[in-house]
Amino acid sequence: MKQLLAVDWGTSSLRGALLDNDGKVLKERSFERGILTVPPGEFATVFEASFGHWMGATGTFCLISGMAGSKQGWLEAPYCACPAGFDEVASQLAWVRAGRIAIVPGLSCEREGIPDVMRGEETQVFGALQLLGLQDGLLVLPGTHSKWVWVRSGRVESFSTFMTGEFYALLRQHSILARTLPEADAEVDWDIFDEGVALALRGGSLLQTAFSVRSLSLFGRMAAAGLPSYLSGLVIGEEIRTQQLPAGTPLVLVGSDSLTRRYERALGQRSAQVQCAGAEASWRGLWALAQTIHPHWDA
Amino acid sequence: MKQLLAVDWGTSSLRGALLDNDGKVLKERSFERGILTVPPGEFATVFEASFGHWMGATGTFCLISGMAGSKQGWLEAPYCACPAGFDEVASQLAWVRAGRIAIVPGLSCEREGIPDVMRGEETQVFGALQLLGLQDGLLVLPGTHSKWVWVRSGRVESFSTFMTGEFYALLRQHSILARTLPEADAEVDWDIFDEGVALALRGGSLLQTAFSVRSLSLFGRMAAAGLPSYLSGLVIGEEIRTQQLPAGTPLVLVGSDSLTRRYERALGQRSAQVQCAGAEASWRGLWALAQTIHPHWDA
Repeated sequence: MKQLLAVDWGTSSLRGALLDNDGKVLKERSFERGILTVPPGEFATVFEASFGHWMGATGTFCLISGMAGSKQGWLEAPYCACPAGFDEVASQLAWVRAGRIAIVPGLSCEREGIPDVMRGEETQVFGALQLLGLQDGLLVLPGTHSKWVWVRSGRVESFSTFMTGEFYALLRQHSILARTLPEADAEVDWDIFDEGVALALRGGSLLQTAFSVRSLSLFGRMAAAGLPSYLSGLVIGEEIRTQQLPAGTPLVLVGSDSLTRRYERALGQRSAQVQCAGAEASWRGLWALAQTIHPHWDA
Repeated sequence: MKQLLAVDWGTSSLRGALLDNDGKVLKERSFERGILTVPPGEFATVFEASFGHWMGATGTFCLISGMAGSKQGWLEAPYCACPAGFDEVASQLAWVRAGRIAIVPGLSCEREGIPDVMRGEETQVFGALQLLGLQDGLLVLPGTHSKWVWVRSGRVESFSTFMTGEFYALLRQHSILARTLPEADAEVDWDIFDEGVALALRGGSLLQTAFSVRSLSLFGRMAAAGLPSYLSGLVIGEEIRTQQLPAGTPLVLVGSDSLTRRYERALGQRSAQVQCAGAEASWRGLWALAQTIHPHWDA
C-alpha cells in the first residue's frame, strides 16, 4: 500500500496528514513548529521528530508545501513563474530525499513591473479546483497575506497579495487603536462588521477609515466590544473594494470557516456569489500533485 | 510688559515659547514630557517645573494647545464643532487658572455619519492662515495622524484624518517588512520615494502596495537602503491619492521641513502647487488667539 504524507510547513505552523492512495485523510497532526522556530540545519530533525513514525511505512512518500521551500526553509524550491499549472509545479519540485521527500515550489508573477510571490497557496488553489471540479475562477485565500488568484484552464495566470490579516493585527495590537479596543476579540458582531465593510467600500483609504475606530469610540457611538468586528470589516472591505469581480467566472473562497464567512458576508455587499473550500484543499492539492509524479512515488 | 507663554503640549512632547506683545519669539524650550508621560494629577507640577520661571513675570499669560486638553490631559477642553473659526475657539477656552493659563479646545466635525477630531492642529491652521495672509485654503498637516483641513473665510469648515505616519511606523517596526528594511533610515532617496508615490497614485490599496516592499527586495530589484524611502512614498502617495485637490484654492503644507518636503514632492506628481508654513505656525496661532482674549490677558 502506498501512502502520502502531505505536509503544510508554513511560517508559524507545521501541519501534516497521512493520505491513502485514494486521497482519503487517515490521520492529521499539527505542531507549533513553523519555520521561524527552526534553526538552520535543524529541519530534518524537526521533521523526523514530528512525522518520522509516519514515514516508516514502506512506500510512504512525502510532499511539502509552504515556506519550508523558502530561502529560510529546509531546502529552497525556486519560484515557478506564472502562468503556471500543475505540470510546471510538479516538474520543479525540490527533492530533499530522492524519491521520498520533496518540496513544492511557490509561484511568482509580475504585474506592471511589480513582482508578487506565494508559497503554499498554489497547492491550496490546485486542491480547491479539484475539490470543486473547476478549471477557471478567481480564487480568494484570506489570511495574514491574502491572495487573489486568477485561474484559467487549470493554470494560475496571475495573482496579487494583500497584507490584510497583518494590517488587522498591527492595528489591533500596536496602534493607537489598541488602547480603545478590548483585550480579547469576542464573537463577530455581524451588523457592526457590515458597517465597517460598507464604509470601506465607499472609497477612500484605510489610512482614513481606520481612524473612525477611534473617533466613533470617543463620541460613544460604538461600544468597545464591537470595535474589533468593525475594524475587521474595514480591512476586509478595503481589500474587496479594489477588486474587479468577474462576471460569469466562479468566485471561490479557500480557507478556514471563520475567515471565509467574513469574506462571504463582505462580498455579499457587492452582490458576489461565492463557492467555498476549506482547509482540506491543501491535502487535496498535495495528493493531486503526488499523482502526477507517480514515477517517483513508485520508486 | 505683557508676554505670552505659548505651549504645544502633545501626546509625545511638550514645547513652549515665550512671545512678546508683537508675537516675536523670545525663547523656546522643549521637553520629552508628552501627556502620556504625565500621571493624572501631575500636570501642574510638570508645567511648573518646565515653565514656572517664565510664568513668574508679571503679566505673562499662558495659552496651551494640543492633547493637554483631552480627557487624559490637564483639563478637558470639549471639542468645538465645525464650522468653527477663531471666535468659537477663543470663546471656549478651558481655564486652568482664571486669567493666567488656558487650554485651547480641539475641533470636531462629521462627514457621512463619521466623526473626526483634532487637537492642536486647529491652532497651527489659524497660525498658518495668519502667516500667509489667507482666509481660504486646503491646509495639509502631515504627521502621525495627518490632517486635511478645508478653510473658508477664516473658518474651518471640515477636515479629515489619515493615520499615515502611524502606518509607516507600524510597517517599519512591527510588520514582516521590518525584517527586510535596514535598522536606521538613511537620507531620503528621492527617486525611490517617487517610485513609491507613483505606484500608490495608480490606485489600489496600501494593503497591496506595501507587499511590494517585500517582493521587490526578494527579487533583488531594490536595495535595502532604499526601502524606507520607497515605503514612505507608498504611504504618502496613498494619502494623496484619495484627495480631491481644489482648483483655484491655495494648498498649504504646515509642518516640519523634513515632512513638508516629502508631501510637496509627492503632490508634484499630481501637479499641485503648494505654499508652506513651518513649526512657527503653532506660536503664531496661539499668539493670534491670545490677541482676541485681551480682556483676560490684561487681567
